[in-house]
Amino acid sequence: MTTGRHFLQVPGPTNLPSAVLRALSRDVIDHRSPEFATLTLEIMSKLGRLVGTNAPIVIYPSSGTGAWEAALVNTLSPGETVLVPENGFFAQQWAKLATRLGFGARAIPGDWRRGVDADLVASTLKGDTERAIRAVAIVHNETSTGVRSDLQPIREAIDATGHDALLIVDTISSLGSADYRHDEWGIDVMVGCSQKGLQLPPGIGLNILSRRALERHELSTAHRGYFDWSPMLEANRAGFFPYTPPTNLLYALDASLDLLLDEGMERVVARHDRHAAATRAAVDAWSLELQCVRPSELSNSLTAVRTTEDLDADDLLRVVRERFDTSLGTGLGQLRGRVFRIGHLGALNDPMLLGALGAVEAGLRSVRHVITDSGVAAATEFLAINDLGSDPTTDPPRV
Amino acid sequence: MTTGRHFLQVPGPTNLPSAVLRALSRDVIDHRSPEFATLTLEIMSKLGRLVGTNAPIVIYPSSGTGAWEAALVNTLSPGETVLVPENGFFAQQWAKLATRLGFGARAIPGDWRRGVDADLVASTLKGDTERAIRAVAIVHNETSTGVRSDLQPIREAIDATGHDALLIVDTISSLGSADYRHDEWGIDVMVGCSQKGLQLPPGIGLNILSRRALERHELSTAHRGYFDWSPMLEANRAGFFPYTPPTNLLYALDASLDLLLDEGMERVVARHDRHAAATRAAVDAWSLELQCVRPSELSNSLTAVRTTEDLDADDLLRVVRERFDTSLGTGLGQLRGRVFRIGHLGALNDPMLLGALGAVEAGLRSVRHVITDSGVAAATEFLAINDLGSDPTTDPPRV
Amino acid sequence: MTTGRHFLQVPGPTNLPSAVLRALSRDVIDHRSPEFATLTLEIMSKLGRLVGTNAPIVIYPSSGTGAWEAALVNTLSPGETVLVPENGFFAQQWAKLATRLGFGARAIPGDWRRGVDADLVASTLKGDTERAIRAVAIVHNETSTGVRSDLQPIREAIDATGHDALLIVDTISSLGSADYRHDEWGIDVMVGCSQKGLQLPPGIGLNILSRRALERHELSTAHRGYFDWSPMLEANRAGFFPYTPPTNLLYALDASLDLLLDEGMERVVARHDRHAAATRAAVDAWSLELQCVRPSELSNSLTAVRTTEDLDADDLLRVVRERFDTSLGTGLGQLRGRVFRIGHLGALNDPMLLGALGAVEAGLRSVRHVITDSGVAAATEFLAINDLGSDPTTDPPRV
Amino acid sequence: MTTGRHFLQVPGPTNLPSAVLRALSRDVIDHRSPEFATLTLEIMSKLGRLVGTNAPIVIYPSSGTGAWEAALVNTLSPGETVLVPENGFFAQQWAKLATRLGFGARAIPGDWRRGVDADLVASTLKGDTERAIRAVAIVHNETSTGVRSDLQPIREAIDATGHDALLIVDTISSLGSADYRHDEWGIDVMVGCSQKGLQLPPGIGLNILSRRALERHELSTAHRGYFDWSPMLEANRAGFFPYTPPTNLLYALDASLDLLLDEGMERVVARHDRHAAATRAAVDAWSLELQCVRPSELSNSLTAVRTTEDLDADDLLRVVRERFDTSLGTGLGQLRGRVFRIGHLGALNDPMLLGALGAVEAGLRSVRHVITDSGVAAATEFLAINDLGSDPTTDPPRV
Repeated sequence: MTTGRHFLQVPGPTNLPSAVLRALSRDVIDHRSPEFATLTLEIMSKLGRLVGTNAPIVIYPSSGTGAWEAALVNTLSPGETVLVPENGFFAQQWAKLATRLGFGARAIPGDWRRGVDADLVASTLKGDTERAIRAVAIVHNETSTGVRSDLQPIREAIDATGHDALLIVDTISSLGSADYRHDEWGIDVMVGCSQKGLQLPPGIGLNILSRRALERHELSTAHRGYFDWSPMLEANRAGFFPYTPPTNLLYALDASLDLLLDEGMERVVARHDRHAAATRAAVDAWSLELQCVRPSELSNSLTAVRTTEDLDADDLLRVVRERFDTSLGTGLGQLRGRVFRIGHLGALNDPMLLGALGAVEAGLRSVRHVITDSGVAAATEFLAINDLGSDPTTDPPRV
Repeated sequence: MTTGRHFLQVPGPTNLPSAVLRALSRDVIDHRSPEFATLTLEIMSKLGRLVGTNAPIVIYPSSGTGAWEAALVNTLSPGETVLVPENGFFAQQWAKLATRLGFGARAIPGDWRRGVDADLVASTLKGDTERAIRAVAIVHNETSTGVRSDLQPIREAIDATGHDALLIVDTISSLGSADYRHDEWGIDVMVGCSQKGLQLPPGIGLNILSRRALERHELSTAHRGYFDWSPMLEANRAGFFPYTPPTNLLYALDASLDLLLDEGMERVVARHDRHAAATRAAVDAWSLELQCVRPSELSNSLTAVRTTEDLDADDLLRVVRERFDTSLGTGLGQLRGRVFRIGHLGALNDPMLLGALGAVEAGLRSVRHVITDSGVAAATEFLAINDLGSDPTTDPPRV
Repeated sequence: MTTGRHFLQVPGPTNLPSAVLRALSRDVIDHRSPEFATLTLEIMSKLGRLVGTNAPIVIYPSSGTGAWEAALVNTLSPGETVLVPENGFFAQQWAKLATRLGFGARAIPGDWRRGVDADLVASTLKGDTERAIRAVAIVHNETSTGVRSDLQPIREAIDATGHDALLIVDTISSLGSADYRHDEWGIDVMVGCSQKGLQLPPGIGLNILSRRALERHELSTAHRGYFDWSPMLEANRAGFFPYTPPTNLLYALDASLDLLLDEGMERVVARHDRHAAATRAAVDAWSLELQCVRPSELSNSLTAVRTTEDLDADDLLRVVRERFDTSLGTGLGQLRGRVFRIGHLGALNDPMLLGALGAVEAGLRSVRHVITDSGVAAATEFLAINDLGSDPTTDPPRV
Repeated sequence: MTTGRHFLQVPGPTNLPSAVLRALSRDVIDHRSPEFATLTLEIMSKLGRLVGTNAPIVIYPSSGTGAWEAALVNTLSPGETVLVPENGFFAQQWAKLATRLGFGARAIPGDWRRGVDADLVASTLKGDTERAIRAVAIVHNETSTGVRSDLQPIREAIDATGHDALLIVDTISSLGSADYRHDEWGIDVMVGCSQKGLQLPPGIGLNILSRRALERHELSTAHRGYFDWSPMLEANRAGFFPYTPPTNLLYALDASLDLLLDEGMERVVARHDRHAAATRAAVDAWSLELQCVRPSELSNSLTAVRTTEDLDADDLLRVVRERFDTSLGTGLGQLRGRVFRIGHLGALNDPMLLGALGAVEAGLRSVRHVITDSGVAAATEFLAINDLGSDPTTDPPRV
């Protein structure tokens, strides 16, 4: 029996703004009506503004996995290869998906505590003299590790090789939280979804394209139906869809985009940066270690924390959920039991973050983990000192 | 500028019960939590009860088109053929989808005013001595024509041939409205979705399987990722999903299933039958013709009405929408401009139906169509005479 | 077991716009915060615009009865008399309330089928040479009879006598539906509430004042606490309240005022006029009689219909509610069993009205009332012919 | 520009359970329908269970001030006196209201840091040999000071004098939070409202009566209309109301009562006790002083904290609201600027409380108040150690 609002601090799905919750309960309208077309076109325009592009956007009733699949089946032909630097669980899963779909997936074994190595990408492409690799698939922000990879160096490294592989980027846990500039950074296919920084329920997958991606799409002979871009792009032009779109999730998307654009992406990013830094102040006070080892690669949407030998992460999570009404992310794949993840993305303010950190701290105490310094106190101090107006760094708090 | 509730009388999406609208706005929870597992398992159990089966159920974040694709890619191997009796627009589209996915689609040219001919199915299968046909795909209730095909004779006809083709059935516009008995009727794969009789917003696609379908699935070598049954069935067993499920749509599904099971499917069917008959009483009074020519095949979830030479269906629809705040379904494919469709499925009561028929009648008058008798008056009389407790027939009203 | 939306066609509470329903579920905020003050001041400004005044407005957490009481206790002193022309049930109740509150209530016996007689008001005031009468209380739109009294002639008649009685007007079922001009018509105290034309749930009572009303208020020695204007007006000036205001109803009020002002009161009135005329076309087709006998006094927010000898109004209402999911208003006081009332105010469109009239007609048939002509057909024809853009009259339909 | 959920930590209105927010948006129904009667009767029964009584309950569309007024005008006659121990701002206001309503209000000057002195009440009554005092009005939980007065000793003290004054109790900020037993403690009139422990929006006022209160009501000659118990009790018997009740707030009340009764009042009280103790652990760590000086009288629904000389409470509140998105209660009356109040009542869980305390602590740091120990850390520790299953004391945390 719980009372009060559950704290959903997994790194997605996230807490929803109440305006978005209300938008979900709007009456369904006819998806072939002029009102619907207006809604579609406005959403496309707002999404484009959010990521700095006028490129075509494809919206699926799907999870992020569907958007992964869409990116592959629309650009590759059977037997073609995608290069996947495997720096975390989700990169690993994406590569597996490519294989299941009949494509080659060449892994670059990666370090789960560091971002993608642009030089390794470049050297692999250089070695690919037969151009078997048709795309490079990068996870912008590894939700399993809390490590963000810089996309610009990767783009530059690819360009420097002269290789024509497309650059496909998974922004699932960075979109709406971290800085992402579609055109400026030269991304060919962006893969996104609804339930993270876009602060919606799950159920929408996204692709954002580039001119090159569309050209490659024309050449692709992979079988595809549901995820085919072509009928989507054609119908979308007038604001419609080739099959029934997820109306109420689109209402919510429209409402959420209004909130994000009103706040301004620059400020949204700064807000996430500040909350991430406050979270790290807490982790530091608890004398726990971050999964991410490079300060420049710290995610601003989640923090993955390594537990000590005597502390099973899943025990901690269970206590935090059962006694302190807060959900955290479990360790995935090779990190199971050794890592827990604190999501600090989406619709979040200071007291929500402090409540979540308080719940973690209470959980640590409950499982008899010795705490020398209070993390929630450190985070409180950090937030008091570092106003959003000022310039929060990603360093430990200045206290 | 409109005021009041829009009448959404397209044959899906449908008007939502207000309890379902409220369920949509519940807070998102962690899809890896025990609460979520309980939700999943309850939904599966309720869905099974609704259609009379304990067979595995697969729920996708997708439209109905996604569920179409899932049924094919999970049971067929590349190059294998599905037999599709083309008695309407959606059967035609499904066959096209099969082709795009790399399967053979053998059409049985059909009559868009009649249901699927079980004898033709049988004779085609008999001729398939090489067993190239691995599945027969039937649209239970053609949303484009308002014609419902009887599934039992088709099942029996297939069985009589001894052919081992699977029977895949699209219940997109019949599920939750018409009688459907998964096990009793021997359906191998059922394809359904959320936004029709299940009275939800779009965004959920369904497959319900059979033992034989699962066996065939084991043999299928088609590439698949997002729509693959295997990881779904494995994760579902414990109440979880291999990728993020559409939480808030699942809340709504759970709420809607409660409503339908409380009402009881027998009564739900009777309610739809009665509203369909009242609608036909109106059509008859307007001296318009039904698209469906066999009384035994009349859909209970929508009525497709043929217009006269001098009456463009789309003109009528525009007037009805713009002046009388009511959405109707347009004619699809070869029926464009010649047919309009009145949806009478989902959360509907007598005054809603009468309001919709009144809007159609006002629209007919507005486009200067001569009306001798009032359809809304006839429907009112029908509803007054035929209580839901009594035995409404599919015949014209007894007045 | 019902499905679909109940048709709430009592003359208040009314069907709510879905935007208003959503506004009700906004999170509560601190009523002492700057955000709250902004909300209050905006609501006051919008309400003033709706009725054409800059005069002070007082908002109570109360029903309309509370607003009746407020109008009396703030302007009268113990023993002072209010003159109440009793042309219906609610006027009668108001007079009784005055007596219970310790004031004198002088009735002018009225005709429940006609509006207030301005000449009788004038002659009574002329006879009141001692100025015992301190206020005249008029019900603008009698919700029990569907008769609207013209306010301007009454104002003029009072002025012509030179008597200084205040003019207090109950707009409970006219506000937001009928034309009402606070300043232009010289109303001293307006009494209103939330659940009628303002399309809100019950729970808010209103007074709108005049300079003269405030002067009289200064002189009033009646005991009052909760309903005292003075602390309200003082706190309201800064956007606050002397006690906790009904936050979520205020959200809804704000949302509803936006809808009404966007539509424009002129058009709102025309919409109600047209729906009232369509309703009378139905009543006429049913060969039933209106309670209101003067065409110029027909209410545009409800229609009170007299039943025939053999037709008990409450039997009809029960059948309409139980079988056709529609609530109508019962006959009140001396009209019990002899009158039923159809509300056509608030958030209503053509198909909603036609659905409601269809439900009444189905109910009439169900109780074996002989119907020669279909009322719902007549109303449909009326609505088809009379566009809101054209000039609907209050006469029977031109058909 | 804020994002995330505002923390509403004033001592009412409180954060609402999301089920209650959803209940608010249910469609309005006819308040004269059988469904409505069922709703009314269920609410009455649940309310009775919540406070241990079968006595009549009166529900007003009003604020708590309205319920104060109702208690007085229904039991006193003009000129009769109510005895009011003035131990805080709200007791003072209540006495003023009595005077404005034409009753005598005899104050017992009290100490705003202590509860009501039962002996002083008794000695005053003993001195009232003429029985001028007809009622004693006690504020159970002073929302301005965070001091709770024990009701049983007061009841016993009154009884011991043999005086027949009624005992009227304001439970506005204790109902649904603190222990309250209507029959067992012999309360004659209980005054409550919606927006505190009942976790509803403002808009409902309550009276719960006793047999003696009803007898006194029969004798009372005070003028009353809106707040008169008699027509309420008569109409309520069948589940109806003499004037339009606040339908959607009643939906919410019904939903909230289900939550509270499911949790069980014993556990609800324990939950509030624990959160109050955790809050005091924080206050203690901040080296701030409680307004309440007796441990046995500490409120479990709010904590009033005294600021130091150099700390203006309202400055702090402004910073906490503007920078940390949290509303706290201001100091009222003589405590303005010297006290701030933390509400910890209603729908609250541990992370919400920790978030609120974190916001206060961040605010204290922001206004340059020197903090030696972290309050939020102390509260976290308290909550970790003191499970709700264990026995939280009102003493400082055992750490």
